Amino acid sequence: MVTVLFAAAPDLWPLYEAPLRTALAEAGLHDVTLCPNPAPDLTPEGVDYIVYAPHAGLRDFRPFTRARAVLSLWAGVEGIVDNPTLTQPLCRMVDGSLRQGMVEWVCGQVLRHHLGLDRLLAQQDGTWAPQVPPLAHARPIGILGLGELGQACGQALAGLGFPVTGWSRRAHDVPGLTCRHGAEGLATTLAGSAILVLLLPLTPATEGLLDATALTQLPRGAVLLNPGRGALIDDDALIAALDSGQIAHATLDVFRQEPLPPAHPFWAHPQVTVSPHVAAETRPESAARVIAENIRRSEAGEDLLHRVDRAAGY
Amino acid sequence: MVTVLFAAAPDLWPLYEAPLRTALAEAGLHDVTLCPNPAPDLTPEGVDYIVYAPHAGLRDFRPFTRARAVLSLWAGVEGIVDNPTLTQPLCRMVDGSLRQGMVEWVCGQVLRHHLGLDRLLAQQDGTWAPQVPPLAHARPIGILGLGELGQACGQALAGLGFPVTGWSRRAHDVPGLTCRHGAEGLATTLAGSAILVLLLPLTPATEGLLDATALTQLPRGAVLLNPGRGALIDDDALIAALDSGQIAHATLDVFRQEPLPPAHPFWAHPQVTVSPHVAAETRPESAARVIAENIRRSEAGEDLLHRVDRAAGY
Repeated sequence: MVTVLFAAAPDLWPLYEAPLRTALAEAGLHDVTLCPNPAPDLTPEGVDYIVYAPHAGLRDFRPFTRARAVLSLWAGVEGIVDNPTLTQPLCRMVDGSLRQGMVEWVCGQVLRHHLGLDRLLAQQDGTWAPQVPPLAHARPIGILGLGELGQACGQALAGLGFPVTGWSRRAHDVPGLTCRHGAEGLATTLAGSAILVLLLPLTPATEGLLDATALTQLPRGAVLLNPGRGALIDDDALIAALDSGQIAHATLDVFRQEPLPPAHPFWAHPQVTVSPHVAAETRPESAARVIAENIRRSEAGEDLLHRVDRAAGY
Repeated sequence: MVTVLFAAAPDLWPLYEAPLRTALAEAGLHDVTLCPNPAPDLTPEGVDYIVYAPHAGLRDFRPFTRARAVLSLWAGVEGIVDNPTLTQPLCRMVDGSLRQGMVEWVCGQVLRHHLGLDRLLAQQDGTWAPQVPPLAHARPIGILGLGELGQACGQALAGLGFPVTGWSRRAHDVPGLTCRHGAEGLATTLAGSAILVLLLPLTPATEGLLDATALTQLPRGAVLLNPGRGALIDDDALIAALDSGQIAHATLDVFRQEPLPPAHPFWAHPQVTVSPHVAAETRPESAARVIAENIRRSEAGEDLLHRVDRAAGY
């Protein structure tokens, strides 16, 4: 018998219960007790696996003496990776539907800015004023972060004809992309990006990476897309760069505080598009399959997938 | 010595003269006389090739007794294919940059509607109201027309994850796409298209194909994209279908009359986006290479590329 605690916000339980039961059964795990949090009859010592999302109130993992893994529902684990009470293996969510959603959002936003769709939509006044955009090969794209999501987005954009440069802390080699790394690689990548996409994990090394200096290294009039993490950006520096024209537009899907407060200057800024954290939603059906597969692997004595390197932070 | 007449609107001559001279030289054709239209010293009997675009005033091809081919600058040849004075071989423009521009426009417009970008741009008032779109696999796309452009757009959309059905008059087989043809295939394609893209040539058989009946065969709330030819659509039937909610939105790049007159109801209709014929612009540099290659082939006794089937009309 395997006991799984669903330690996420209560409103997620009705969305995930049925998909998790289905996925566990499909993985051949028939003798499973799946419990919401809090589960009155459950003692922490009886839990084998913790399905985890932040805001659940669970901060102390020490009582879960038997738990064999903590399985994050989200791709980003900055809310748990530094928790000193966590000694169990931690796995990130790596979900095909999350990746697919991110690819669609990034390609759609890049093409929106590339084709000038905002101008088109604003110009429906009877004035026939054709402005033919350059072709994709003349619009270089930079992607910061070459994890699962950065690689998938980079390859999709390259498939559409854009020249794509990807940057990451460690050296990568991704077919179809120019790959750079390290501090010098970052400056070169920024200088060559007409549109910059942020897909870095949030770590002490990436927090505020897009500060006044980095924003100045972009070509004048660059467009910034942030579907990664809000705190990658220094908000005040971004607003100054937008006001000066250094950055032409920022389309932001993630923020230091969510929901973004109504009084935040991003909302009213004409060069900012606020997207309410929809770029890469975890879909219950596919996420449940990822969770179930990891439980199956663990029970079969196989290695867990997508284990977090806690020293690196992702 | 080869004489080439550039029979297009005078404002195109400064855009095309240098690229054509360069491309002809690069094709190894060094003894070429390239003339704008009208060219005072030129007699029609002295012309070997006619580079043609409509609105040039050239309607009678009979005096060009020596001309070995008429090479269209545009992909669409409906303005010349029925000209009874034309006895010379006629070639369409098939240009990689035109195809690439069309792929970018179609993918950008499909993703705009798929992701709900119009709603996002209209909702910058401080209200955090996430609406996560379905993934691409749940948004079936129909493409009418499986020529060069329809195939390229269909494959790009399939590459982004959309299920794509392509329809054409004659049977085709395009990897990655569901292909249908004939009258029954058309009804099935329409019924299954959440977003419909028109990339048919304009012929007597396709003129007004999107009439009240066809628009009714689409699922309620479908989106229509027309980067093909304006006269494929019955304008009045489209406006009625938009007003009834049968069609949620139409994004139109081509029109029966261009520029679209300021008083045309498309401009003011909230469910219509007027795009001023920018989806697939012929680029002088690449088009000039296509023209030069066909002249080289003809002079070398090779078959012309992209010859128009005048009975079919394209």
